[in-house]
Amino acid sequence: MLRLIETIPNFSEGRNQAKIKKILSCFDNVKGVTLLDHHRDPDHNRLVVTAAGQAEHLKKAVLDAVETAVRLIDLRKHKGEHPRMGAVDVIPFVPIGDATMDEAVSLSNDVGRDIWRRFRVPVFLYEESAADPLRKNLPDIRRGEFEGLAEKMKQPMWKPDFGEAVPHPSAGAVVVGARMPLIAFNVNLDTSSMGIASAIARAVRHQSGGLRYCRAIPIDLKLRGIVQVSMNMTNYRETPLYRALEMVRMEASRYGVNVIGSEIVGLVPIDALAQSAAYYMGLENFSTNQILEVKLSDT
Amino acid sequence: MLRLIETIPNFSEGRNQAKIKKILSCFDNVKGVTLLDHHRDPDHNRLVVTAAGQAEHLKKAVLDAVETAVRLIDLRKHKGEHPRMGAVDVIPFVPIGDATMDEAVSLSNDVGRDIWRRFRVPVFLYEESAADPLRKNLPDIRRGEFEGLAEKMKQPMWKPDFGEAVPHPSAGAVVVGARMPLIAFNVNLDTSSMGIASAIARAVRHQSGGLRYCRAIPIDLKLRGIVQVSMNMTNYRETPLYRALEMVRMEASRYGVNVIGSEIVGLVPIDALAQSAAYYMGLENFSTNQILEVKLSDT
Repeated sequence: MLRLIETIPNFSEGRNQAKIKKILSCFDNVKGVTLLDHHRDPDHNRLVVTAAGQAEHLKKAVLDAVETAVRLIDLRKHKGEHPRMGAVDVIPFVPIGDATMDEAVSLSNDVGRDIWRRFRVPVFLYEESAADPLRKNLPDIRRGEFEGLAEKMKQPMWKPDFGEAVPHPSAGAVVVGARMPLIAFNVNLDTSSMGIASAIARAVRHQSGGLRYCRAIPIDLKLRGIVQVSMNMTNYRETPLYRALEMVRMEASRYGVNVIGSEIVGLVPIDALAQSAAYYMGLENFSTNQILEVKLSDT
Repeated sequence: MLRLIETIPNFSEGRNQAKIKKILSCFDNVKGVTLLDHHRDPDHNRLVVTAAGQAEHLKKAVLDAVETAVRLIDLRKHKGEHPRMGAVDVIPFVPIGDATMDEAVSLSNDVGRDIWRRFRVPVFLYEESAADPLRKNLPDIRRGEFEGLAEKMKQPMWKPDFGEAVPHPSAGAVVVGARMPLIAFNVNLDTSSMGIASAIARAVRHQSGGLRYCRAIPIDLKLRGIVQVSMNMTNYRETPLYRALEMVRMEASRYGVNVIGSEIVGLVPIDALAQSAAYYMGLENFSTNQILEVKLSDT
């Protein structure tokens, strides 16, 4: 099976096409790296890149992109709706296929160390790379944003993992770490009641007593006249998609409401899909190595 | 998505390790070709190879293997339990991913023409490559086997598609053609009654009124004390796995029997699995291009 790391770095530039192009060029047509997707949002004033490759090649591409972003983006002049604390705001690394979480953590450490060493931007490690459980969560690290960063970093608990306790003047700080792939999974209900969608979202999500690796909010699909439970599955190995779907169905049934469809937004790892197919089909002893395309990519 | 052809050539040699090795070497470590699997059976006295690659490279590998087999295998001295009519008995070509059936048919024609031209072995085209519907079915072409071939080929309806109407003295004739991938899909029932398994197999299979692209037989799993409906799905795009599974479940219910598991034997194309996952999860607008590994293989 494939043994790759995926990265989804977020850059604080969603408007200037020339700058965006320069950042993307660090991932495009680069040996050993595949640029999978990019999304820029002028309101958020943010660019989200998705790329994958072998650790060594990906490291080079990411560091090139950080160098470019630090040179081109000045957060003192940056406005946008999305919270941010750095020119490069966050760099997650995700293990794919046979790659392990340890490999992703190790890559995040290497990249973090080099970002400080080469560009003098302080680095916080988050998620699986965090040294302290209090620093696992990106919103906690980012609270106060770029504008509050200098004050925040004076507190001993917000000393960065690499670098000095002072933000880079124009580039702020960057959050780097390893995490499982995140799957955006929505379930549609045959009701227009947001009250029911909210109750179900609360029932399935971790925060309020539900599944360990599930975040959920209710969404009003006004055009279709229905509501949706919109979920982020943060670890599909431990909390499979089918379990979240069946829990939504179970909770919906008490209101006489039915699941009428679901949706995966963006990319999904093949074993997340195979896991749910195997559950519903009752497949015994199924291995993703039986998938022809996986077997082909193995060689 | 991937654009490859798979081939599963069958050779009439399952005992002599040196000869088997020479045939396999035509597919192993060959540029643009991946040897996926091979299975030899001494009782059948037969070798089944699974390989995939781009049409041009695969053609070369297959012709090399035919040359080797024609040189090494003499059917006049061949005995085995499996029916056969050629040193190379059958060469199916299967489109994978974005490859089309037309491409597979075209490759089968090229290979067939060259087998006659280079090795003077007559060729019959079968399945999707057959010029006549009466010649689609391998068992029909092979009936009478090597020993009856000279007589059979004298009949106008058994004139080969390439070559003269006389078998090669030691290598017989070969059947070449394009077909959809075949998926071996078994469903287990919580009964030991072969009568019930037979009735369900008859209900789901095409031959006796069931699904168009489904063959099925009952199997006694004596060690587990249960029975199985063992299916060959010959076109998963038209007859999806989930439809066969749900039909087995539906038929079983009239006997008070439950489906307790299922099994995919060997390889399965990713979209066959995604198709069933999408059905059970009610996925709207899902595309296999959303599968991370497929997207990665695309580049």
